[in-house]
Amino acid sequence: MKNYLLTPGPTPVPHEALKAMARPIIHHRTPRFQAILKEVEEDLRYVFQTKTDVLIFSSSGTGAMEGALSSLLSPGDKAVVVRGGKFGERWGELCSSYGIEFIPIDVEWGKAVEPQDIKKILEEDTSSQIKAVYVTLCETSTGVATDIESIAKITKPFGAVLVVDAISALGAVPLKTDEWGIDVVVAGSQKGLMIPPGLSFVSLSQKALGLVQRSRLPGYYFNFSAYKKAIEKNDTPYTPAVNLIIGLNEALKMIKNEGLDNVLNRHKNNARAVRDAVRALGLELFAPEAYSDAVTSVKVPEGVDGGRLVKTMRDKYGVAIAGGQAQLKGKIFRIATMGYITAADLDVCIETLEKVLQELGYRFTKGAGVKVLKESLK
Amino acid sequence: MKNYLLTPGPTPVPHEALKAMARPIIHHRTPRFQAILKEVEEDLRYVFQTKTDVLIFSSSGTGAMEGALSSLLSPGDKAVVVRGGKFGERWGELCSSYGIEFIPIDVEWGKAVEPQDIKKILEEDTSSQIKAVYVTLCETSTGVATDIESIAKITKPFGAVLVVDAISALGAVPLKTDEWGIDVVVAGSQKGLMIPPGLSFVSLSQKALGLVQRSRLPGYYFNFSAYKKAIEKNDTPYTPAVNLIIGLNEALKMIKNEGLDNVLNRHKNNARAVRDAVRALGLELFAPEAYSDAVTSVKVPEGVDGGRLVKTMRDKYGVAIAGGQAQLKGKIFRIATMGYITAADLDVCIETLEKVLQELGYRFTKGAGVKVLKESLK
Repeated sequence: MKNYLLTPGPTPVPHEALKAMARPIIHHRTPRFQAILKEVEEDLRYVFQTKTDVLIFSSSGTGAMEGALSSLLSPGDKAVVVRGGKFGERWGELCSSYGIEFIPIDVEWGKAVEPQDIKKILEEDTSSQIKAVYVTLCETSTGVATDIESIAKITKPFGAVLVVDAISALGAVPLKTDEWGIDVVVAGSQKGLMIPPGLSFVSLSQKALGLVQRSRLPGYYFNFSAYKKAIEKNDTPYTPAVNLIIGLNEALKMIKNEGLDNVLNRHKNNARAVRDAVRALGLELFAPEAYSDAVTSVKVPEGVDGGRLVKTMRDKYGVAIAGGQAQLKGKIFRIATMGYITAADLDVCIETLEKVLQELGYRFTKGAGVKVLKESLK
Repeated sequence: MKNYLLTPGPTPVPHEALKAMARPIIHHRTPRFQAILKEVEEDLRYVFQTKTDVLIFSSSGTGAMEGALSSLLSPGDKAVVVRGGKFGERWGELCSSYGIEFIPIDVEWGKAVEPQDIKKILEEDTSSQIKAVYVTLCETSTGVATDIESIAKITKPFGAVLVVDAISALGAVPLKTDEWGIDVVVAGSQKGLMIPPGLSFVSLSQKALGLVQRSRLPGYYFNFSAYKKAIEKNDTPYTPAVNLIIGLNEALKMIKNEGLDNVLNRHKNNARAVRDAVRALGLELFAPEAYSDAVTSVKVPEGVDGGRLVKTMRDKYGVAIAGGQAQLKGKIFRIATMGYITAADLDVCIETLEKVLQELGYRFTKGAGVKVLKESLK
């Protein structure tokens, strides 16, 4: 059975990258690898839309998130954490694990934070104890996208840095690091960058670098200073995930060749088509006002078993989508449109979704989803 | 030009593993991946020679080393650190970065620690503040192997756990985790396990698990409790490096098929042959009394430029060996015999070494190295 992967990470890896990663491995402290690393660094700056160094870690995205806390803050600092899903909550857990007091902004799952709520908290912080605001661009668990541009305008005049979890966003939705003035962007390899999981990335503004220099929380492997120092010599502080970086080099070249704007437009069109298609099936979006173009969350209709829907699509038809996580388990399903997921993949996905919905007893106009998808993608 | 990799990490990756990693990627929260993870866990226990769970991290070995500090200790705890090379020093740096006071045992580079020196320190610690002893099995930077079996006998009756950096050792030299009573073994993917860098591993004894439960140092991504909890459900707490784990599954099957004892004997024979060959060229071993069978360190002879030797072998002949690190830069070169490095690779390596030594003006009996290597390998 041919398998189709439409999960919000890992996303499909292009053959070009798989092939590059399957070449005999090379040593990392060689001119050959350093030339690759240099290209990767340059192309990462292009995708991040930044002129600053992008640090590369061998870890899941969560590792880079931890660094964006342990390498920035010091004991006694406070943070603001926007929590509107599983990954927003992770920022809070990270704060707690380092004894950093944080002011949570709890947002209903499926909705985006009101930027003004952040402003209010920063204005009330007259002693300037708040050193960082942690937000999630695309909340993978709910399919919500947050208005980072507006939030960056708010945080700019304050002492606090804006830290954005863009793991499910980079290369999928607009993110103008320098232009918007985002201090710290955290990303991962297995989403819009089309590479297997195992690499994470961080960009740092001058304001963020100032915090890094003063940071007094413990930490070693994710200590940004060591990576910053190494990258200036085109090196890494510890043995990097050599073949993932070699694969990333190919994936980034594909993004560059297509052009970042074209890539983002493709995501926008594909995600819109998915939204149109599921609506045509009479299904409801979980985040109708704040949807992300990286992953679309859809409410499981009354009378249908959400777990069984996802399982049947995967095991009977080879189409992998994601179910809900945590409190949304069984209540939503999620179709990713990130990275190397093509219009043809979406076609298979919606067709299979129709098949399985029918098998599970849901009533709808047969073929309506596929028809609308195709029209939307024209 | 065909390239030969004889560096002490990364080591060559078998075609079987490269091929498996080049397959279309799959999602990690699926029965298909969980079945792979289960096999990997079982086979890791075989190679670690332990009955306990082996935790898997997506990171370089250094990440797992950090966890073996931040997940075990608490503020006020003390540690003993054996420092006889770059990686022993890393244990000390890790302690410092968490404010953990440590008693260093500084060993001359090229020599192994006297186990009795550890005993003395533990006996003097009448208040039992020392909670961990950090040692390196194979010190990659010097080519020294340490007598862990004797050290484990010493630490056993004390409250302190024995933590062994076996990154350049697992699958290459004998390491009987349970039988010897090692509390924590740290390993990496890119050495004896024959996989690209990006995965690290940790085994924990009951004594070590007790410390983990009581640990009060901060940390999130390398928090052992989260991994221990996840592994019991055949899961990982964060998105794992899926394709590296799939490659590891193949590599571990190769080790199992050959048989761990045969694998270790092969390493022993290959390393002895390298030692015999370089001696036949009139070269001196850097660690004649405490050599490791994972990597052989050789003194650069008088009048030869060590950096140029390594560079010429790599750039002119495609044979990658390693030079010296830190204080040994230019003074030694290192030939790895770890993992998928075969007798044929060693043949090419010694032949090329002879060629380049001759080009650099060193005088020796031409052909003596290759001849002795072949005899030794018979």
